[in-house]
Amino acid sequence: MDEFDLVITNGVCVTATDVAPLDVAVKDEKIVRLAPSGSLKASRTKRLIDAEGGFVTPGGVDCHVHLQEPSMFGKGSSADTYETGTRSAIAGGTTTVVAFAPQQKSLDSVLTALANTHELARDNSYCDYGFHLLVANPCARALSEFQQLASTEGVTSLKIYMTYEALQLRDNEILSVLLEARRNSILTMIHAENGDVLAWLTEQLEAAKLFAPKYHGHSHAPILESEATNRAIALSSLVADTPILLVHVSEPAAALRIRAAQTAGQPIFAETCPQYLFLTRDDLDQPGFEGAKCVCAPPPRDAEDQKAIWRGLRNGTFALLSSDHCPFRFDDAETGKKTCLSEEYPVGRFRHIPNGIPGIETRLPLAFSARKMEMTKFVEVTSTNAAKLYGLYPRKGSLIPGVSDADLVVWYPDGALGDITLTNDILHHDVDYTPYEGRKLQNWPRFTILRGRVMWDRDGGGVVGDKSYGEFLKRQKSTLNAIWDTVQEEGPFDLEKL
Amino acid sequence: MDEFDLVITNGVCVTATDVAPLDVAVKDEKIVRLAPSGSLKASRTKRLIDAEGGFVTPGGVDCHVHLQEPSMFGKGSSADTYETGTRSAIAGGTTTVVAFAPQQKSLDSVLTALANTHELARDNSYCDYGFHLLVANPCARALSEFQQLASTEGVTSLKIYMTYEALQLRDNEILSVLLEARRNSILTMIHAENGDVLAWLTEQLEAAKLFAPKYHGHSHAPILESEATNRAIALSSLVADTPILLVHVSEPAAALRIRAAQTAGQPIFAETCPQYLFLTRDDLDQPGFEGAKCVCAPPPRDAEDQKAIWRGLRNGTFALLSSDHCPFRFDDAETGKKTCLSEEYPVGRFRHIPNGIPGIETRLPLAFSARKMEMTKFVEVTSTNAAKLYGLYPRKGSLIPGVSDADLVVWYPDGALGDITLTNDILHHDVDYTPYEGRKLQNWPRFTILRGRVMWDRDGGGVVGDKSYGEFLKRQKSTLNAIWDTVQEEGPFDLEKL
Amino acid sequence: MDEFDLVITNGVCVTATDVAPLDVAVKDEKIVRLAPSGSLKASRTKRLIDAEGGFVTPGGVDCHVHLQEPSMFGKGSSADTYETGTRSAIAGGTTTVVAFAPQQKSLDSVLTALANTHELARDNSYCDYGFHLLVANPCARALSEFQQLASTEGVTSLKIYMTYEALQLRDNEILSVLLEARRNSILTMIHAENGDVLAWLTEQLEAAKLFAPKYHGHSHAPILESEATNRAIALSSLVADTPILLVHVSEPAAALRIRAAQTAGQPIFAETCPQYLFLTRDDLDQPGFEGAKCVCAPPPRDAEDQKAIWRGLRNGTFALLSSDHCPFRFDDAETGKKTCLSEEYPVGRFRHIPNGIPGIETRLPLAFSARKMEMTKFVEVTSTNAAKLYGLYPRKGSLIPGVSDADLVVWYPDGALGDITLTNDILHHDVDYTPYEGRKLQNWPRFTILRGRVMWDRDGGGVVGDKSYGEFLKRQKSTLNAIWDTVQEEGPFDLEKL
Amino acid sequence: MDEFDLVITNGVCVTATDVAPLDVAVKDEKIVRLAPSGSLKASRTKRLIDAEGGFVTPGGVDCHVHLQEPSMFGKGSSADTYETGTRSAIAGGTTTVVAFAPQQKSLDSVLTALANTHELARDNSYCDYGFHLLVANPCARALSEFQQLASTEGVTSLKIYMTYEALQLRDNEILSVLLEARRNSILTMIHAENGDVLAWLTEQLEAAKLFAPKYHGHSHAPILESEATNRAIALSSLVADTPILLVHVSEPAAALRIRAAQTAGQPIFAETCPQYLFLTRDDLDQPGFEGAKCVCAPPPRDAEDQKAIWRGLRNGTFALLSSDHCPFRFDDAETGKKTCLSEEYPVGRFRHIPNGIPGIETRLPLAFSARKMEMTKFVEVTSTNAAKLYGLYPRKGSLIPGVSDADLVVWYPDGALGDITLTNDILHHDVDYTPYEGRKLQNWPRFTILRGRVMWDRDGGGVVGDKSYGEFLKRQKSTLNAIWDTVQEEGPFDLEKL
Ligand SMILES: [Zn+2]
Ligand SMILES: [Zn+2]
Ligand SMILES: [Zn+2]
Ligand SMILES: [Zn+2]
Ligand SMILES: [Zn+2]
Ligand SMILES: [Zn+2]
Ligand SMILES: [Zn+2]
Ligand SMILES: [Zn+2]
Repeated sequence: MDEFDLVITNGVCVTATDVAPLDVAVKDEKIVRLAPSGSLKASRTKRLIDAEGGFVTPGGVDCHVHLQEPSMFGKGSSADTYETGTRSAIAGGTTTVVAFAPQQKSLDSVLTALANTHELARDNSYCDYGFHLLVANPCARALSEFQQLASTEGVTSLKIYMTYEALQLRDNEILSVLLEARRNSILTMIHAENGDVLAWLTEQLEAAKLFAPKYHGHSHAPILESEATNRAIALSSLVADTPILLVHVSEPAAALRIRAAQTAGQPIFAETCPQYLFLTRDDLDQPGFEGAKCVCAPPPRDAEDQKAIWRGLRNGTFALLSSDHCPFRFDDAETGKKTCLSEEYPVGRFRHIPNGIPGIETRLPLAFSARKMEMTKFVEVTSTNAAKLYGLYPRKGSLIPGVSDADLVVWYPDGALGDITLTNDILHHDVDYTPYEGRKLQNWPRFTILRGRVMWDRDGGGVVGDKSYGEFLKRQKSTLNAIWDTVQEEGPFDLEKL
Repeated sequence: MDEFDLVITNGVCVTATDVAPLDVAVKDEKIVRLAPSGSLKASRTKRLIDAEGGFVTPGGVDCHVHLQEPSMFGKGSSADTYETGTRSAIAGGTTTVVAFAPQQKSLDSVLTALANTHELARDNSYCDYGFHLLVANPCARALSEFQQLASTEGVTSLKIYMTYEALQLRDNEILSVLLEARRNSILTMIHAENGDVLAWLTEQLEAAKLFAPKYHGHSHAPILESEATNRAIALSSLVADTPILLVHVSEPAAALRIRAAQTAGQPIFAETCPQYLFLTRDDLDQPGFEGAKCVCAPPPRDAEDQKAIWRGLRNGTFALLSSDHCPFRFDDAETGKKTCLSEEYPVGRFRHIPNGIPGIETRLPLAFSARKMEMTKFVEVTSTNAAKLYGLYPRKGSLIPGVSDADLVVWYPDGALGDITLTNDILHHDVDYTPYEGRKLQNWPRFTILRGRVMWDRDGGGVVGDKSYGEFLKRQKSTLNAIWDTVQEEGPFDLEKL
Repeated sequence: MDEFDLVITNGVCVTATDVAPLDVAVKDEKIVRLAPSGSLKASRTKRLIDAEGGFVTPGGVDCHVHLQEPSMFGKGSSADTYETGTRSAIAGGTTTVVAFAPQQKSLDSVLTALANTHELARDNSYCDYGFHLLVANPCARALSEFQQLASTEGVTSLKIYMTYEALQLRDNEILSVLLEARRNSILTMIHAENGDVLAWLTEQLEAAKLFAPKYHGHSHAPILESEATNRAIALSSLVADTPILLVHVSEPAAALRIRAAQTAGQPIFAETCPQYLFLTRDDLDQPGFEGAKCVCAPPPRDAEDQKAIWRGLRNGTFALLSSDHCPFRFDDAETGKKTCLSEEYPVGRFRHIPNGIPGIETRLPLAFSARKMEMTKFVEVTSTNAAKLYGLYPRKGSLIPGVSDADLVVWYPDGALGDITLTNDILHHDVDYTPYEGRKLQNWPRFTILRGRVMWDRDGGGVVGDKSYGEFLKRQKSTLNAIWDTVQEEGPFDLEKL
Repeated sequence: MDEFDLVITNGVCVTATDVAPLDVAVKDEKIVRLAPSGSLKASRTKRLIDAEGGFVTPGGVDCHVHLQEPSMFGKGSSADTYETGTRSAIAGGTTTVVAFAPQQKSLDSVLTALANTHELARDNSYCDYGFHLLVANPCARALSEFQQLASTEGVTSLKIYMTYEALQLRDNEILSVLLEARRNSILTMIHAENGDVLAWLTEQLEAAKLFAPKYHGHSHAPILESEATNRAIALSSLVADTPILLVHVSEPAAALRIRAAQTAGQPIFAETCPQYLFLTRDDLDQPGFEGAKCVCAPPPRDAEDQKAIWRGLRNGTFALLSSDHCPFRFDDAETGKKTCLSEEYPVGRFRHIPNGIPGIETRLPLAFSARKMEMTKFVEVTSTNAAKLYGLYPRKGSLIPGVSDADLVVWYPDGALGDITLTNDILHHDVDYTPYEGRKLQNWPRFTILRGRVMWDRDGGGVVGDKSYGEFLKRQKSTLNAIWDTVQEEGPFDLEKL
């Protein structure tokens, strides 16, 4: 009888702290052995993969993914279903996603929102998945359901917005969310842009007849983000240092504000995304409607800002590099970017451009190819920290024998692939473009393995897994760093201490 | 014929930069001569005052005064009319006030609000006066009237609120105000506290049955102020560095934020008030309802914070020391502090305590007696800068022969008065208490002179002037420091530069 | 034949990123397998250790250790030889030390200094060891030897002093060292205290007849350290961002300065020590001469400062927690603390108290017992980062099968040991006191294993290893984080870019 | 008999706080009356000057002037004597200078140094003058003389250097100076550049054969200045917040460090100079030896830095704008810039270029013409603050009747002069160039009046005064702002408080 289901030999294994030549053995969906390189080559195994010296990393964990969400901002709607989105994930080396279960303002229950989202994802995912609650209506009922969310449903994080009419919470609502999240050890993700200012700038720009895609960037001026970031941190601080995560941070002043809070010992976490490392304002400022391909919020910033975001990734300001995959088709006037075109507005109206870009598949290859982080840092921010922050660790995000799922990416040996040109053709989402069209890449996942099963075999059929293999993941509370320390030290929020 | 109407001899004159023994001569309401000390003693003058070595300072200019405003927050209403408030001012050495002309949210015109306020003040003021527009409804009509306000009506400043349901503007509304203010060289005063957070804390405190006056302080936690201050600065910055003034700054983090903006060259100005220099949290935390006497917003802070505010006054963070006189009677269940008492709430409900304290008369004596500033700084922050910031200079705020109004305070010689105990008995407002009851003072205005006329003669009848002598002052645009430099350098707000 | 030399079963293994129940197998001095917990219990192994649920951590790596250095500051001399010091290390869970090879100012060669130190350590060490060059005379010859040091001798780090007459380098000398270190990828450790200021304060204190041990603390006022830290960072920055490590950081302002540099992307690293986490100024201020037991430089600081140092450890400001073991006997008038006592100076003269405290054995137990860090952070700062920073990784500091030496500490299961009282009796150094006498500890290394051999068996004989088993370690260049990135990006120091 | 010696009518008088049309009357060397504009036109006066609407400002006070100092750095020696330097001052609107009385390292007495300098200046100065002691040897005797300096000799300030072999004090020496200065209420001026680093960079540059004048700028890299500034502030702080003044600040990081200290309430003052507002690095980087004309220390910086220095001037970081007049002839191989040329070094060796530039005459016209400050700020930083900081106020620096000396500058009415081209021809120093050759100016002093006497009449003979009219000024202790507050609050330096 075979000792192992799968052995990967001759790879260089990477965790958030180690890089070393090691063989990996898999049995019953788990990693069961790490052994000196080459030592498992001859073992009895159902399948043997020779990594030929390539890196072997834990499967990517992407915890900022929008899939099949209902239209909340107008005509655009998500180009990807759970099926197509997770297919794209797996082809790009991501084995776990945490997507959003959106509560709309008209709904008073978050559990209902969760149930609805389960419907969409069930038996429809190539990778393992979990949900964050997207809370748009923190009414008493919704708040009262937080306990069940966390303790029973395995949903230990939620996202709130400081912008967008359909989603924006006022500061008092944010405080109510934070207080209840604190009570239940739920992590609150915050989209920090000042919605009132955005609305005002949008009106001013439209009044001045500035409609082109690039003005999306003007309407989301950097100070919207740094202001809201400061405010979010203040609110966290007010509720006796309740942990928050600032998502998709794009600009240096916000990053510095976050860093200052971390320096002071506050439980402030942050995420950035490939669009802030690989795109700039120039990508928005294309002739005609082309810039719409890069319309997302916050928008790509200047080249100098990009450097600062890289710096923040390296110095630990950002715990996470997520995709914020939020896909809309470009050449589609029914559900995509072009819904905002009309005879009156031949280059569209930036305010109505469906807001988001695809990136679930390109996240890891872009970051890997940039060679601007150590490999350990790459694994840390794209997998391990995400697993820890969202309560999936140690099952996900690491390579611990007997403990970690056998979620693995086998990369090509250095240089083996030559330069790849990234084009939308090679991607597996249901979107008709990628904002990174034409970029050169140095590597790509050769195999993506989910719980021991090869789901992606680039040279042997591409997506070879099955869309019903992905499982829903009930998540524990966050364990990243000392995230709950202030909560434990301070105890329950105490009005007398104000 | 007399050469002069009035001569003050043997005084030590103080301006924002100089301290020197000088004689002052007055003719036709103006200062007409500064001469070597003693040299005018023998001149032909209608009246001669011998200052006996005491200081002679420009009349106080108090540009943060609430008089006879309509009830906007519930049952309390202003204890002082223009008559009683300005009587109190003059007795405390203040010769000019700028009070608020409040536009309520239900009103779409600021000019109407201005007209209404003129009615109240006309022939009813012991001192000269001007108005700031208090803008609660920045609708299109109101904004369109800004030009007339500034160019015709002599109203070159306005105040807006980031808190209080009846007054709070959203950030987009603030931006509209700033943009129009910029166009008309109007200075925007901002009450910076986060109203949504205040509302939430108030609800939390009430839900926990914490009603006593001291919880007013808890509900206005320091971070409300520093957060809103940061936001206000961000909004100013967004509108191409439009000048703003943060009023009644009470806490160190806000002061440091302001200082950082000033360091960076932004046109951010700030004011503090005696309550943040002479009261603390302990004054709020009195047995029973007593603490209500010190309920104002922001509230008095900790002793350490007080030190930081003094530091800010000395290092120039604060251009102004104003009173924020906002008087309510204490022992008055119809219009005063006690309107919030009931059988159910024997110590009241802090949320309904009329919010404000009297201080127009005590501002100068307290600050003078503290001996914590140089005399030049004392004059600078209580008179000269106020005159400059609010477009009254050089007519007010200085001692320039032929140019400045003969608005003067003659103080007692050092030690001549012994220690005075401040009690409400000696004050001239229509309020039944002072929050500074029992404090020791070293000096008090001996004479207050408005445009050459003695209005206050402490040893010769007290208030000896006439309530119709005060004149309305049309104000020019602000001239403090380089306040409009960024406006001139940047030019009109340009959306393309965002 | 046995498959393994040693198996540890039922332990909870910890690395800098993972905590998990795992069995560990050892063969030929290396870790060769990590396997699901319990799975190796029955394997063929020469020795089986049942960890009974206790933690298993990589052996401690202590890279700040003074052993058998010649007297450079007066009468005191090191109480520990390599034998006794490393015996103490091993009993406290430390399997690798990097000690100093001191070049005296009178010596022009660093290679000679290195050779001398080899003599002392050879066949005389219970643990593996390396050397940092302590450079007191960076003359041309010494600088010219840096290349051989790094490339041939395996000495890839050096330490310099900004204080102490016998060692202090002027800023120009520091620059020469940094420039040559940069060329050879050598890491420069800096003792950052302002020596000139120390000398002046010492004279002032003595002139005022303030001789007691506590004045050692006064003479090393915090600002000496923050000033020198700022200067060291400036010097690093000047030489095109050459990496430096600030050793034994004790005070918050220095920590914040370091953090600011890290935020800005500069290659500034830092270390703190148990004395700044567990001792305070009060420990220095004991009756009579007792405080001399805690005389080290920098001195222990205030309780508030301690908190800030803990914060810096948790937020990543400090990469390392080292001992700065620098032992002198207390009750010893020939070579110890009491050499500074005399009839004239019955409580000694603080300036002549031999400067340093023992701590090599207590470092890990104190830090472990404090329970103020996550276990991963504990391993990171006491072992992994030290190994990476000093070029010993992955051989030391991790648990990688086939790669890492089998250097392991097996701790007692939680609570198994009860509270231990730390007394000098239980320690293995050749010092007659510990500054931590009487502290309560929750745990202690049960077994310390060096390259597969049990060296310390607390319940089975104590130190059971052999003083000739420790090996000299040639070290590679530092690999911590992106330490050489700025060097690579900037290239050689370029005067034209100044 | 004439009532007045001199009347200036139709001028616009400016002080540090006021700008107003006023007539000025002078009698017996003093200002005796300020009167409404035009009102003194018809008075009985020996002389009447019609300012025709031009500004009338207090005479310039320039407290950073090097005159007739001995060679201390090699071959160069001062081009100006007291006679020629003060002649130049008066022609540029400066009526008071404070120059340096240099103690050389070989001299143990500062009183001797003072006596020597008196010899040079006596009966040889067109303007009033005082001395700062330049302390190069703070030995016991020199320190013991501080009391006499301040109390008897009227020398209440001194300057020390952190650079230049001939002058550099070590940090311990600086502390001794500060301590003694504190005891005697003496203000310590500090030239803050790191001399050891300068020496090292100079050697490196020379070793690389980089000798041209522009490398002077490289050798004085900005970080030398910000480092030393931080150190100086640390030393002041250590001696219980003893006041210091950082002279000739040229770069933004130093300015921000100073500002931070001021924000924290420390008694840190600062000065900048025209060369940091009007010259840049490009002026140093001229073909051949031309750049030597702009060699001074610190050197001119980048255009962005210049902006930051202007910002610091406007926001109050800098109390003073002084000239740092330090004149060497250019085309002079005996005593001037060209002493460093030789056949071997055809563009000289930057290290030997006499270090300094002339500027005593151009300071006011350049600053006035720039129109980048309000007029009150112009007077504040060029006259009033200097008088206050150096104990000359209110005799100098203001316009107080009966109190202030009649030191006045009458400027041309706006536009009356057209553009003037600044060339060395029109200057009155004994230097053969000006670094500002060819600049356009909008104004120039029309009359300079010293104690009532016209010394400079641009349209009526130029320098019309007499070189023996200038008087030595015994100075009081500094009175700028709250300069001695920390000294009074803290009391004598207390070692127990360290
Ligand atoms: Zn978002
Ligand atoms: Zn998103
Ligand atoms: Zn207010
Ligand atoms: Zn108010
Ligand atoms: Zn050291
Ligand atoms: Zn050490
Ligand atoms: Zn200098
Ligand atoms: Zn100088």
